[in-house]
Amino acid sequence: MTDSTLRAAGAPIGACCPPIVTAALSEQDAEIMAAMFKALADPVRLRLLSRVASHPNGEACVCDIADVGVSQPTVSHHLKKLREAGLLTSERRGTWVYYRPAPGVLASLGAFLADTEKRGESEVP
Amino acid sequence: MTDSTLRAAGAPIGACCPPIVTAALSEQDAEIMAAMFKALADPVRLRLLSRVASHPNGEACVCDIADVGVSQPTVSHHLKKLREAGLLTSERRGTWVYYRPAPGVLASLGAFLADTEKRGESEVP
Repeated sequence: MTDSTLRAAGAPIGACCPPIVTAALSEQDAEIMAAMFKALADPVRLRLLSRVASHPNGEACVCDIADVGVSQPTVSHHLKKLREAGLLTSERRGTWVYYRPAPGVLASLGAFLADTEKRGESEVP
Repeated sequence: MTDSTLRAAGAPIGACCPPIVTAALSEQDAEIMAAMFKALADPVRLRLLSRVASHPNGEACVCDIADVGVSQPTVSHHLKKLREAGLLTSERRGTWVYYRPAPGVLASLGAFLADTEKRGESEVP
């Protein structure tokens, strides 16, 4: 996801850039965001994402969060899907791969949803 | 989606209630949110949602937003999916069904994502 795409989603990028809100969502931005929402469209993945973000240091490996009721290979599979969608980043350290939320991406998706709701509200007569 | 579920997602409910943030996402809340993200996991639906929210009065019927490159029956199908997921409400007036964002729902999903990102960031040493 590029900075311009993130800005199109109504999100602040870095400390210097104000949010830019676009009334109409472009086809390209819609494709990118739909792929991310698809990765979020699974209850186990949502719980894993929440667990990773809540873990000390804001990162976790499979060994830290394997208690969500599915097997460790399944946890690894879901974390990989979240990484491939650009929602998590990963770093291998020794035996384990550590995951953390990709900076700015969840906030940008959240800002798009909040902005969409706000636009609807602000137009109510 | 109940008020308690929305609050569990880290969202403000109404004017009186502060956001309540939970570190661990429950299985039930994850199921509810995953179904909503599934409805958002389609680029045409995202563009239609954006169009509905951007339309004058914050509502639109199929007749208003049928120019996203798919047939009118397909637009109707996608709007119905968004309504079934709880993201849009609908009201029939005469010939047409008018859609608008369901109050608080997109903002709640957005707050969950923003909060998840924030938790990850705040734990970085």
